[in-house]
Amino acid sequence: MSADDLKKLVKEFKALTKKHLKQDFPENPWEQLMGGVGAVFASWNGKRAIEYRRIENIPDEWGTAVNVQAMVFGNMGDDSCTGVAFTRNPGNGENKFYGEYLVNAQGEDVVAGIRTPAPINQYSKNDQSKHLVTLEKFMPEQYKELDDIQQRLEKHYKDMQDIEFTIEKGKLYMLQCRVGKRNGVSAVKMAADMYKEGQIDGETAIMRVGPNQLVELLLPMFDPAIEKTHKVIAKGLPAGPGGAVGRVVFSSEEAVEWASKGEKVILVREETSPEDVDGMHKSEAILTTKGGMTSHAALVARGWGKCCIVGCSEISIHEKEKYFLTKDGKKVKGGDYISLNGTKGTVYEGSLPLIDVDLNKNQSYKQLMTLVDKYKTMGVRTNADTPKDVEQATYFGAEGVGLFRTEHMFYGEGSDKPLFLLRKMIMSDTESERKTALDELFTFVKRDIKATLEVMKGNAVTIRLLDPPLHEFVPHDKAKLQELSKELGVSMSILNRRILALHENNPMLGHRGVRLGVSYPEITEMQVRAIFEAAAELQLEGVKAFPEIMIPVTCGRHELTHQKVIVDRVYEETVEKLKVKKIPYMFGTMIEIPRAALKADSMAMVADFFSFGTNDLTQMSFGFSRDDIGGFLPKYLDLKLLSGDPFVSIDQSGVGELIKIGVERGRKTKPNLKVGICGEHGGDAESVKFCHSIGMNYVSCSPFRVPIARLAAAQAAIEDKKYVKTT
Amino acid sequence: MSADDLKKLVKEFKALTKKHLKQDFPENPWEQLMGGVGAVFASWNGKRAIEYRRIENIPDEWGTAVNVQAMVFGNMGDDSCTGVAFTRNPGNGENKFYGEYLVNAQGEDVVAGIRTPAPINQYSKNDQSKHLVTLEKFMPEQYKELDDIQQRLEKHYKDMQDIEFTIEKGKLYMLQCRVGKRNGVSAVKMAADMYKEGQIDGETAIMRVGPNQLVELLLPMFDPAIEKTHKVIAKGLPAGPGGAVGRVVFSSEEAVEWASKGEKVILVREETSPEDVDGMHKSEAILTTKGGMTSHAALVARGWGKCCIVGCSEISIHEKEKYFLTKDGKKVKGGDYISLNGTKGTVYEGSLPLIDVDLNKNQSYKQLMTLVDKYKTMGVRTNADTPKDVEQATYFGAEGVGLFRTEHMFYGEGSDKPLFLLRKMIMSDTESERKTALDELFTFVKRDIKATLEVMKGNAVTIRLLDPPLHEFVPHDKAKLQELSKELGVSMSILNRRILALHENNPMLGHRGVRLGVSYPEITEMQVRAIFEAAAELQLEGVKAFPEIMIPVTCGRHELTHQKVIVDRVYEETVEKLKVKKIPYMFGTMIEIPRAALKADSMAMVADFFSFGTNDLTQMSFGFSRDDIGGFLPKYLDLKLLSGDPFVSIDQSGVGELIKIGVERGRKTKPNLKVGICGEHGGDAESVKFCHSIGMNYVSCSPFRVPIARLAAAQAAIEDKKYVKTT
Repeated sequence: MSADDLKKLVKEFKALTKKHLKQDFPENPWEQLMGGVGAVFASWNGKRAIEYRRIENIPDEWGTAVNVQAMVFGNMGDDSCTGVAFTRNPGNGENKFYGEYLVNAQGEDVVAGIRTPAPINQYSKNDQSKHLVTLEKFMPEQYKELDDIQQRLEKHYKDMQDIEFTIEKGKLYMLQCRVGKRNGVSAVKMAADMYKEGQIDGETAIMRVGPNQLVELLLPMFDPAIEKTHKVIAKGLPAGPGGAVGRVVFSSEEAVEWASKGEKVILVREETSPEDVDGMHKSEAILTTKGGMTSHAALVARGWGKCCIVGCSEISIHEKEKYFLTKDGKKVKGGDYISLNGTKGTVYEGSLPLIDVDLNKNQSYKQLMTLVDKYKTMGVRTNADTPKDVEQATYFGAEGVGLFRTEHMFYGEGSDKPLFLLRKMIMSDTESERKTALDELFTFVKRDIKATLEVMKGNAVTIRLLDPPLHEFVPHDKAKLQELSKELGVSMSILNRRILALHENNPMLGHRGVRLGVSYPEITEMQVRAIFEAAAELQLEGVKAFPEIMIPVTCGRHELTHQKVIVDRVYEETVEKLKVKKIPYMFGTMIEIPRAALKADSMAMVADFFSFGTNDLTQMSFGFSRDDIGGFLPKYLDLKLLSGDPFVSIDQSGVGELIKIGVERGRKTKPNLKVGICGEHGGDAESVKFCHSIGMNYVSCSPFRVPIARLAAAQAAIEDKKYVKTT
Repeated sequence: MSADDLKKLVKEFKALTKKHLKQDFPENPWEQLMGGVGAVFASWNGKRAIEYRRIENIPDEWGTAVNVQAMVFGNMGDDSCTGVAFTRNPGNGENKFYGEYLVNAQGEDVVAGIRTPAPINQYSKNDQSKHLVTLEKFMPEQYKELDDIQQRLEKHYKDMQDIEFTIEKGKLYMLQCRVGKRNGVSAVKMAADMYKEGQIDGETAIMRVGPNQLVELLLPMFDPAIEKTHKVIAKGLPAGPGGAVGRVVFSSEEAVEWASKGEKVILVREETSPEDVDGMHKSEAILTTKGGMTSHAALVARGWGKCCIVGCSEISIHEKEKYFLTKDGKKVKGGDYISLNGTKGTVYEGSLPLIDVDLNKNQSYKQLMTLVDKYKTMGVRTNADTPKDVEQATYFGAEGVGLFRTEHMFYGEGSDKPLFLLRKMIMSDTESERKTALDELFTFVKRDIKATLEVMKGNAVTIRLLDPPLHEFVPHDKAKLQELSKELGVSMSILNRRILALHENNPMLGHRGVRLGVSYPEITEMQVRAIFEAAAELQLEGVKAFPEIMIPVTCGRHELTHQKVIVDRVYEETVEKLKVKKIPYMFGTMIEIPRAALKADSMAMVADFFSFGTNDLTQMSFGFSRDDIGGFLPKYLDLKLLSGDPFVSIDQSGVGELIKIGVERGRKTKPNLKVGICGEHGGDAESVKFCHSIGMNYVSCSPFRVPIARLAAAQAAIEDKKYVKTT
């Protein structure tokens, strides 16, 4: 703006100020104007703006622009008004003009919420506003004009518009229009509708939906209007999205007991361990005071799509006395109802009403996902450990199982017998003792693998051999120890000494994964035999099966060769025993140790596929234990020492480089090497896009994240194509 | 060999067999000959040959060659004999012809040791052979001829020769000559002597001594002849070389108590922890049943150059009853004498005599090391935590301190008060409580740093800020906890809760290093202030000081910037407070997290130097916890799944690549970036050579390894030059 323009503008301001505001315009107009401009710039650094940018991942350095513009006034009497409207309903996506207005008011009055705005038309009425006069009735001519304009605007921009308008003394002014914000349900419906209407093409429709918006379709949520009216009693990390309501219990046993009586419960604990899995499964939600976004509780809950809040250090649990205290000193007792919003990490007293969504009834979702599958080039599999989980994932569109953990059978429901046998095996002192225990265990392992292969009907099922350090399975209570001591015919003191010998200072870096398979080849053998026999039996029953045997925690080629020798031998033995010609399968490894990524060229000599275990790879690359990051990660994120939680979204420039190196080197040795990812990141949209960009064949994630991964994969393919087009 | 040649040879064999062995040569000469050749090839795969190759790092695939040659016979009567001789004494390096012979015998009779061989000359006589006739007297003519030949051979090959000869009916035949094996003392003496004699140049002299041979000069050893006559009662991993004799104790307290009475003790434990350091220091040697080559015991002992055997799982300790059992069921009680050979990992009953060596009296060593320093281009520093250690290292030729651990003052002698203050700091709940404790601690930290800087007189001292997870310092015994509870005015139950909150599942990947400095900037501030004040005070006292402030466990640039802001502020404050113009110092970081190596370009924007912490880098790159590798590493080495223990010698193709990436990327940002290594690998010759090859400025190792690192650095420089010459 030139100095002359500015002078003119200031003159106009003076006149208007005098006329409408009944006060003088400040004497130094430069100062005034600059002050205003400055305030806008300052708003960029306001607390909420910063918060917003952090959530939306908008860089701080972008800054904001200032347009200086003449004003119109909706507060010039009862022939004036101002309003906000949307070309479609942003709450449910319906293709209906929707909005509110206020007579004799300015825009800030609408925003301030002091007066109840009136609906612009019959469709926009709600409980609070149904008795008010619509704009359509109050100013039919102007409404007609506004309706015409909104239709033209949406056609022009090919997206739902958020419109601000003012009527000054009967004359309609359009103040602003922009693409309107919408919730997940609306985003999906609008994208599908506009595609059907022919307004947008398939690519655009897919790009219109944020992957995280899909989550809203998949999980029960609180009604936002009602949630707003309740006070937050504590806040933690939003580890598992969705809403949940239940009665407070403080132990896994209680959870199981109450749930068996039909009670909905929420398990509240300092932290959870594998022994709590049964109770966690039976609970509506989990609330812990410790741990980060990838603590045991968070991982397990996300896998099930269960609501979960972790690291809620604001409350202190008094387990023995059965209550917890909030930071305000409020006492919540066992049996009291609480409500958890796992999307936000907020805890409420009492029972808030939930809205559940049935995906099968959502035609727009179905249409969109059909479109998605046409565009995506990367496969999407699931991390699932039971036939039930696998079925769930298939329903969500999983094309295979990218991670089947053999150890799942030792946790939760029905685990008593196999866990006891595993413990017997662990506590054995000699190879022959161990083999006896393994023989007994074999039946269970084979049964579980067979059931999962059967559900997948020939689609790949990647079975990871036993991964956790053995001492994780050692019982802690005396009764179980005594039972074990009796069964093994070994004194308690010897048993305790064996347990002590298993203790490790850093189990994450200890005797686990392939290291177990090297130390005890008979453990590998038992699992591999179970896999081959299960596959062969299915074949004989006329059911296709395609297992992929995956060796975890490898750091070099020789470990892999060592295991391959066992696999080859057992394969031959099984083919002979069950009289089948061939058992289709693949042999591969997880890449989850930094060295494995660097030595990928060598490892690909033995492996037919790589699956990146990005959880562990992130742990080792950063030197972060995901169980222990609670102590420092929040501060790191606050101080922006890290751009984000690397366990939520792949750290592309660090861990990502190792992954890239691994893929490139692996494919250099074996150009058709199958490469995927099976860490939690497989369900994170940004990470999925990264996986696409480096040429992975598939991603694998927990059942509930499968639709998100599919959408992200399609978006990545579209962005990729666009990138090619423009260069 | 042609078929004709072979036929001739077989004919000759036949005649000789008939004549001397009074038996027929087998009818199928081809078979016979091939059988012999086959036996040689087979010997390559003999148990001892494999063992030998493993020790010497000789690849299995090299194989062996077979020369087929006509024979001469030393067993044709009393005018025949056979012998072995060395052109210099391989036992002490003296330039004297030295050897043994047997009348009427073949070579295998000498080797078999059934008959006592006679000395070839007066000089070669020993206690067993002094009454026997020398070859010089027995066959003066042939001896003269042999002596002439040996002199010519050594001049020709320019190295000490190991000669085999046979006299058949008065005629001397030379069977073989090769470079003779020698022990460390001889190797050094021969190299220095031959250099002085003008036989070899400086480069050759340096290349003649194996870096590990130097160890023999530095440590007390058992007399090999006497050791041979004792039975090994147990075998473990040779963690700290040298010999030691002492009485068995089973606790650190006992060790301290007995040592104070002038008793020499050997501490025998399942494993050691920082709380044992005082007792370990007071012991002659340490013997543990658990842990690997880089367990706590191994690391601490190597740092001190103390004899140590770890992972000796063959013995079982009964601590309460104060005895241990060997696998043969032998009971060794507390107070019994045992002897440890830490070079071999062998344990003996009773007290074996030790030979001690005074380095100052070894002129050859001094001459060699003077030569070494002329050739090496890389600096050699030491990892040392006390002025005493630093002085020791200077004596061994250290040019600076590459790693000064601030936490050393909390272990061992005199640590009571600082440890108590540290614990007070850790157990503080608020920043102000913590600051009070830190203020008290400041005095101790400054005192220690100042003393070390003073000894180094302006040579660089790299001071690492507090590294271990805080919970490592938490007391375990009730009395100390109660004292702490009183001092802090906090109940035991609150104290216990705070301790519980510090517990981590994987402390190695937990809240440590820079993460502490980020969470509690006041801890960084206190240490940095101590460093600057110490340096400034020395400056005012006329003593040069050059501290390098090193931030540990970093994974990215922003952490480093966060700490640099504190350093800059405290620097300004100190310059002002102590009224000095300038305090020379450098600011840098350890590279010990894989991600840090990958992000080195970015980190070098803030750091003036990198010091690779190869212990932790190896831990994270392999996913191996050095405390827990005992469970699987021995099997990995046995099965050759790894080419060596990566904690002993840098895994060049894996971890080494990360180091290379780190150096290259760091120097890309800052071409004059100072780069060194301060892990245990800095004292391993192969690793030192690797560090030279990738352009490091220095290596740093424990005081006792400094001479080894110097020699290895010189050898690397020479090999490097040679490599350039030939390309």
